[in-house]
Parts: sequence; C-alpha cells; structure tokens
Amino acid sequence: MNNVFAAYIAGFLDADGSIYVQLKKNTSYKYDFQIYAQVVFCQSSKHKNFLVKLCKEIGYGYVRERNDNISEYIIGDCEGMMCVIDITLKYLKLKKEQAILMQKILNQKQNIDSADDFVRLAKSIDRFRELNYSKKRINTADVVKKHLIEKNLLTP
Amino acid sequence: MNNVFAAYIAGFLDADGSIYVQLKKNTSYKYDFQIYAQVVFCQSSKHKNFLVKLCKEIGYGYVRERNDNISEYIIGDCEGMMCVIDITLKYLKLKKEQAILMQKILNQKQNIDSADDFVRLAKSIDRFRELNYSKKRINTADVVKKHLIEKNLLTP
Repeated sequence: MNNVFAAYIAGFLDADGSIYVQLKKNTSYKYDFQIYAQVVFCQSSKHKNFLVKLCKEIGYGYVRERNDNISEYIIGDCEGMMCVIDITLKYLKLKKEQAILMQKILNQKQNIDSADDFVRLAKSIDRFRELNYSKKRINTADVVKKHLIEKNLLTP
Repeated sequence: MNNVFAAYIAGFLDADGSIYVQLKKNTSYKYDFQIYAQVVFCQSSKHKNFLVKLCKEIGYGYVRERNDNISEYIIGDCEGMMCVIDITLKYLKLKKEQAILMQKILNQKQNIDSADDFVRLAKSIDRFRELNYSKKRINTADVVKKHLIEKNLLTP
C-alpha cells in the first residue's frame, strides 16, 4: 500500500471515522468483561460502494448499511485494526493519540496473564474514553477491579 | 505542498467536506443572480484549532464556529477554491466529479461576456446540484433564462 493511499485513508478516518474501545459486561469471558474495539469509517449509504471497495483494498472488516441511510465500514478484529492503524498512524492528525493507545490496548489484550493485567488494560481503556470525550462510562477500571475482588479473582 | 499532505486533505474533504455552488437571487449583480460557491471542511468545534492550522497551511479562507458545536473551514474566493481543487483533485475519490465541474464553473464565471454565457453557466450549476443530490432547486437555468428574457437581457 503506497503512502498516498495511506494518507488519504488517514484523512478520511480523521474526518469521519472512529477508533474506539470499551468494556462490556459479559460473563462468558474469563474476567466477566469483553473488550469491544472497532475502527469504523462512516458515509452516507449513497457511497456504500466506495466503502465496499475500501474494505477490499484494506482486506479486513465488512460493510453494513444502517437504517438511517448511513453505511459503516467496520473493522473489529485485532489483526485488521492493527493493520489499519499501522498504515495510517504516521499521517493521522486528529486521531493519532487514539491510534497509539489502541495499539497499546490490543497488545495488552493479547498478553493478559492475570486479573492484575486485566485491570491495567481497563485503565488504558479509561484513558481511551477520556481521549474520545465519552461521557457515559459505566465499566471503568474501578468497576472492573471491584468486581474482580468480589469474585475473589483479585486480592484487594 | 507535498503529495502526502494533498492526499490527506482529499480524504478529509471526501469524508466530511463539501464542494458546492448555487445561484442566489441578488439584483445588485449584472444578471440579477449571484454565483455562490464554497469548499467547506467541517468538524466538531473541539477540533477547531486543527481547522485553523489547516487554513494557515492552505493559505486561503477562514474558520467560523457555528452555534451547534460544529466548526467550518470555509474557502469562498475563486483563487482559494481553485487552489484547493488543484491540490486535491487527483486524490479525490467521492467528490472528483464535483471538483472537476467546479473548476469548469469557476472558469466560466471569469469569462462571462453575455446573458447567453450566464445561462450556460447556470446549466453547469444545474448539473452540479444533480451531483450533490440537492433537492431544493429554485434558481435553475430555466428560471434564470426566463428572468433574463423578461428583463430583455436575452432574446427568446
């Protein structure tokens, strides 16, 4: 992939995309929380074909059409997110901090060996939400820590 | 300006910018219609500084903060629009047709010698609105033509 294409994608992502990660309560996971991360490109559904083409060029993710005439190109798998961040990082201007932190979080996620590691990861996610100005923060690192202590998975 | 910056701007403009032109009734103009054209980059006002920086780098236009927490970097002068289109044209994917047509319209605008020329320009603007899926078209080429005939500025 050449630099000019990478810079174009970075401009597009800065303007109308999002990089985000959150914790969702899900008791089928080892620590009762799922790490839910996505890189998303949005556009009016009249440009859905453009997103489909972009998806083919990048080689990860999928395109879905919402009910409100907006289509989204969503990359939700770790490898795909790492790839798109690697490609765009040096050209991003608005979302560079989010991209760097997402890299860190995805690396942390692949190396969780203990409840302590998981709480550390949750703290990185707290920081992410500050960057994204997310107001509704339910599953913060504090909530995770308290839960893991209650379940005797973590010592106070 | 290097290619990578140009490609970034093109991606940004494709994702969250607009290129548009319309006719506004204004009897202080020779043919009673003003050609109102703009290239606009939009963002949440929390990124207003980014738009201000972009404005300095491109060297044309101005940034304004709207009441709804959105800021706009607006280029409304002919030279500035020509410049930003020249820079981005070969990298645009979604708005390439609009950019090419805008170049044509800006050239036509600088070379109006008769009411016939003005009606031809109005027809280009009709085509522009088709590209932009504009539904409210009041001042079409037909309206302009009829008005100029009524004013004896054009022979039927």
